[in-house]
Amino acid sequence: MKSITHPTLLIDQTKVVNNIRRMKQKADVSGIVFRPHFKTHQNHQVAEIFRNEGVKKITVSSVSMATGFAAQGWNDITVAFPVNLREMEEINRLSKNIRLNLLVDSGFSTLFLLKHAQHPLTIFIEIDTGYHRTGLVPEDPEIEFIINEISSSRLLTFGGFLTHAGHTYQARGQAEILDIMDQSRKQMLELKHHHERFHPEFILSYGDTPSCSLASHFNGFDEIRPGNFVYYDVMQFHLGACSLEDIAVAAACPVVSVMKERGEMAIYGGAVHLSKEHIVADQGFKLFGYVVRLDRNLHWSDPIPGAYVYSLSQEHGLIKMSEKELVTFKPGDLVGILPVHSCLTADLLKEKFLMI
Amino acid sequence: MKSITHPTLLIDQTKVVNNIRRMKQKADVSGIVFRPHFKTHQNHQVAEIFRNEGVKKITVSSVSMATGFAAQGWNDITVAFPVNLREMEEINRLSKNIRLNLLVDSGFSTLFLLKHAQHPLTIFIEIDTGYHRTGLVPEDPEIEFIINEISSSRLLTFGGFLTHAGHTYQARGQAEILDIMDQSRKQMLELKHHHERFHPEFILSYGDTPSCSLASHFNGFDEIRPGNFVYYDVMQFHLGACSLEDIAVAAACPVVSVMKERGEMAIYGGAVHLSKEHIVADQGFKLFGYVVRLDRNLHWSDPIPGAYVYSLSQEHGLIKMSEKELVTFKPGDLVGILPVHSCLTADLLKEKFLMI
Repeated sequence: MKSITHPTLLIDQTKVVNNIRRMKQKADVSGIVFRPHFKTHQNHQVAEIFRNEGVKKITVSSVSMATGFAAQGWNDITVAFPVNLREMEEINRLSKNIRLNLLVDSGFSTLFLLKHAQHPLTIFIEIDTGYHRTGLVPEDPEIEFIINEISSSRLLTFGGFLTHAGHTYQARGQAEILDIMDQSRKQMLELKHHHERFHPEFILSYGDTPSCSLASHFNGFDEIRPGNFVYYDVMQFHLGACSLEDIAVAAACPVVSVMKERGEMAIYGGAVHLSKEHIVADQGFKLFGYVVRLDRNLHWSDPIPGAYVYSLSQEHGLIKMSEKELVTFKPGDLVGILPVHSCLTADLLKEKFLMI
Repeated sequence: MKSITHPTLLIDQTKVVNNIRRMKQKADVSGIVFRPHFKTHQNHQVAEIFRNEGVKKITVSSVSMATGFAAQGWNDITVAFPVNLREMEEINRLSKNIRLNLLVDSGFSTLFLLKHAQHPLTIFIEIDTGYHRTGLVPEDPEIEFIINEISSSRLLTFGGFLTHAGHTYQARGQAEILDIMDQSRKQMLELKHHHERFHPEFILSYGDTPSCSLASHFNGFDEIRPGNFVYYDVMQFHLGACSLEDIAVAAACPVVSVMKERGEMAIYGGAVHLSKEHIVADQGFKLFGYVVRLDRNLHWSDPIPGAYVYSLSQEHGLIKMSEKELVTFKPGDLVGILPVHSCLTADLLKEKFLMI
């Protein structure tokens, strides 16, 4: 504990293992492929935990991330991001050595890949089932065009349809999350029925932690790609997708100021450590993280009642806390922050972490 | 231009030089010390531009940053952040070699430094003139206690009072920003008058880009520490603290999807590149950056009318744009984003930048 001088991401290995096992078991029971998204952790030690649990296929969100994990022996990687054509050289380097699955959502990008690919690539078409970030809507005629172009290619194989139902993050409650999943499933299955006569081998790939956490089964899909579940966070807790005990990371931050008269303390831990992601809580206030106590082994307590991070600047975090709790802290102590969005906090602290 | 494959911070050196010269000249005319905050850029090349413009004293926001710049030959550094007592070893290593100025806002931290300092340290007391982040209010009796403790020390010297009037960022318009500066000045001068009888050598140090940009003079203060002004950003433009032409950085991002039917495009450039910092604009929508065109030399245009980044996830950015403009983009092109908060974007892209 003494060795921690800077904001540091604590990763609870027991919780990580439990989170992985729970999700993998559900995928196994449904008889589908579990291809976890590694963008959340971007961590080679956590990747080894996945490997030990029997995971062989992974998802990432950039070609660079694919390159990083390929160097650690991962050889079946989906880049679940509309292909970045400016990285064609890197794509060709990677696809020479591993099975690389890319995502397209336009005829233009497909034709570009057809022209420039030097090694086999599996191509997924991204489908927008309601999130409206990227992807083609199921009725878009471009889908047919893309499949036909891929079919004409020697190096490209049509892998199937992929969707990320990210609108589950805006849902109000568990029922709405599961409803979004059902609607996505329905659209994806209709697409499958329409196209499988001509291309029988492709699959349906589905993502997002909220619905994958709450669903009792994944029937209809062939693959799931949740990522955040490995750590979970305050946002997932608010969505009802996890319990507080499932949250597997906390940022350990030095206390630098205790302002008793204001009922606040300041920590070394700001936007460049935790990210400016926040949730607007019940009474309209902004919340950038829950506050927990750390014991000597850096394990953390339940959230301190009524305490929360209410403001972040570049390096400062400000915490509201009851006087009773506040008097137990002094400058130089450590305090833990359960992050609102663990993907962003883990990205910011990817070089400052500690496995516990 | 072809070489850019990832989100990359473009730094316009001409604009950087102009922004530095304008601020430095104003400090010179007021006869005060210009001690720019280096947390915004954290960049050794930009630091050299400051050095060429005659800057010798700097401000940073962490001991690590001080260590980094000390290694580049900077030898008078203020860490404008309540001292992190867990870094005492690093503080002692640094203060052996350079003039290190630290910030305290409690008797506790002062006593800790008294006990553990091994080399001379200059100590500033942080004053809260209304921002309510950290610092002691001017009437706090702890100020007297801290000064007396420092006076009893062989290694510690009382440097003076330091404030960051960060509430200028919440101001509505230029008049309110200057009013905040006047109120801060008044409080700081009162403190000075009260204490200078006993400790005649100390100074008043003042920060924040909005007021330092708008002020016609810095009379009353002895030192200014603005940081953001070196790059400026959309937030400063909205505050009226700079013109659009003053903004010296843009994030070059690959276009990955053009969704004509939605009047949107997606870029490789998300929260891990730009940060989730946003402003709520006139009609209530969130804005994560302006959109500019890049020419062959990577210089950028005025913002594209009506275009803005309206949503960010981890790696995706979504841009709204008129159809007329949208049809000129295709996947694989580059587009520029003027960041809402350049400090956070520059921090995220500190290893991915290009001087132009």
